[in-house]
Amino acid sequence: VSIYLAVDIGGTQMRAASYPAESIQPLSYLRITTYSSGTTPLLRLYELISSIWPKDDKVAGIGVVAPGPINSREGILLAAPNIPEWRNLALQKELEEHFNVPVALGNDANLAALGEWKYGIGRDHHHLIYLTISTGIGSGIIIDDEILEGAAGLGAELGHITVLPEGPFCGCGQRGHLEAVASGTAISHWVQEKINEHVVTSLPANRKLTAKDISIAAREGDRLAKEAFERAGKFIGWALADFLHIFNPTIVIFGGGVSQSGSLLLNPINDELKKRVMSPQYLENLLVTNAALGDNAGLLGALALVRKVTIKEM
Amino acid sequence: VSIYLAVDIGGTQMRAASYPAESIQPLSYLRITTYSSGTTPLLRLYELISSIWPKDDKVAGIGVVAPGPINSREGILLAAPNIPEWRNLALQKELEEHFNVPVALGNDANLAALGEWKYGIGRDHHHLIYLTISTGIGSGIIIDDEILEGAAGLGAELGHITVLPEGPFCGCGQRGHLEAVASGTAISHWVQEKINEHVVTSLPANRKLTAKDISIAAREGDRLAKEAFERAGKFIGWALADFLHIFNPTIVIFGGGVSQSGSLLLNPINDELKKRVMSPQYLENLLVTNAALGDNAGLLGALALVRKVTIKEM
Repeated sequence: VSIYLAVDIGGTQMRAASYPAESIQPLSYLRITTYSSGTTPLLRLYELISSIWPKDDKVAGIGVVAPGPINSREGILLAAPNIPEWRNLALQKELEEHFNVPVALGNDANLAALGEWKYGIGRDHHHLIYLTISTGIGSGIIIDDEILEGAAGLGAELGHITVLPEGPFCGCGQRGHLEAVASGTAISHWVQEKINEHVVTSLPANRKLTAKDISIAAREGDRLAKEAFERAGKFIGWALADFLHIFNPTIVIFGGGVSQSGSLLLNPINDELKKRVMSPQYLENLLVTNAALGDNAGLLGALALVRKVTIKEM
Repeated sequence: VSIYLAVDIGGTQMRAASYPAESIQPLSYLRITTYSSGTTPLLRLYELISSIWPKDDKVAGIGVVAPGPINSREGILLAAPNIPEWRNLALQKELEEHFNVPVALGNDANLAALGEWKYGIGRDHHHLIYLTISTGIGSGIIIDDEILEGAAGLGAELGHITVLPEGPFCGCGQRGHLEAVASGTAISHWVQEKINEHVVTSLPANRKLTAKDISIAAREGDRLAKEAFERAGKFIGWALADFLHIFNPTIVIFGGGVSQSGSLLLNPINDELKKRVMSPQYLENLLVTNAALGDNAGLLGALALVRKVTIKEM
């Protein structure tokens, strides 16, 4: 039997799983810390993969999902948040030479989109937008069953389109991007600002608030907290209308922690989307929904990618 | 020898050309009016195609470019500006049944992009954005050598993304779209408004101004006219930064009358683009340029499309 390995690299932890040829039920699964004394993240990665390497079966390929920008055509990790020593790392080549099997590499949001498309809520769709709303806003886009990456792998950054020209600064250094007004971090910042302006709220003034704290307060009826989600949802819905005009997808999938806040965010998104779309045709046959695979979307996306690539090569 | 026909349908005129298998030099070319008494646009189209049908050679296929939204997978013209009787017209099927050869159908901006990609300034590029700036703003996008159309052919509408939320109304009925603030029509409207507010200008107050009039005044140093182009260019440059984050192309091509105004528009576009892009990597290996094929881009795009489709089918 041929086995596929999928690896999910993060700044704190990395994990790997092995799968039989056609299944998404792992045969083995392992999680370790990215850093450990006396070794390097790359050696940790080798260790992790070796640990789940099957004893008797052949490995058909390794799919790897990593955060940050990736040139997937050349298999180069341009940068990895929280792993500063990995800059322009030819990770695909390193792994292929070390393990002597085909390796495919992809960015986390892109592969989460691919995972949902292949094994999740996006099955049977050919045109898909995946938006992950957590501390930042990431995205993956499938067009005609292919991941959109752009010439150097820098595309599909839907969190970095401008919705408020002179708005707050974004993590990327620019201003007024969708991420800067509608991510979990942006929601917290906006509420914090209002609290500093002494807007009435049940939220405490003296500690750092998370989007989760704010969603709980909103559910309990706090007006400021509700308004914070309405505001974020409005920006997302409006940007989404733009995305429909650009991609005309049949499914839009929300992932990430903040999207778990349910109707708090989804209602204003849908209201604004309906208001802003330029023709009702864009909403026909369109499903707007939450992700199905949760934290496993990226890992399963890496599995989908390596299966796809090795099958193409055969 | 096999001959390809390409047809360009407009609300006022339609034209057709025939080409030998590999060349873009037409063997024959004909232009007629879309409307004529005692007949219909569809019969006029049949007439046009029959008139350039080769006497001795075999026709391998017909490529058709039309304005307005098209479901190109099913070959259906959803609507055609200025040809009101064509709504949901199954034009591909009509033509295939009438002429008994393969027919491929595409939207004008998409096929202008394809024309530039195959035979124009976009040759050798795999990721291309084409923006046509005239009375409206149209666009065509090539990703990995394929036209972006979306599930129902409604995608690639880059003129219809919001850049000024509460801005002027757009031709589509929405507000503040790129087209509503930066098209030729938008430039004229903005200048007209300023003239009504008695802003000092060399432009006449008592007649309708075109973007062309304004560009001439700008070149002669008129401050208001220059400001109009700077303002439009700023919006386009800013939107373009978003498009780079989404598509990461290697070439951006400007077509349409307004883009002929040269540095008046291109300078502010480039300035704003540089300011708004989130990483200089997006500008590496990026060519921002004017279109090469002029009015023939659509016709040559139709030729490229039908060659592509018939070769795939063989």
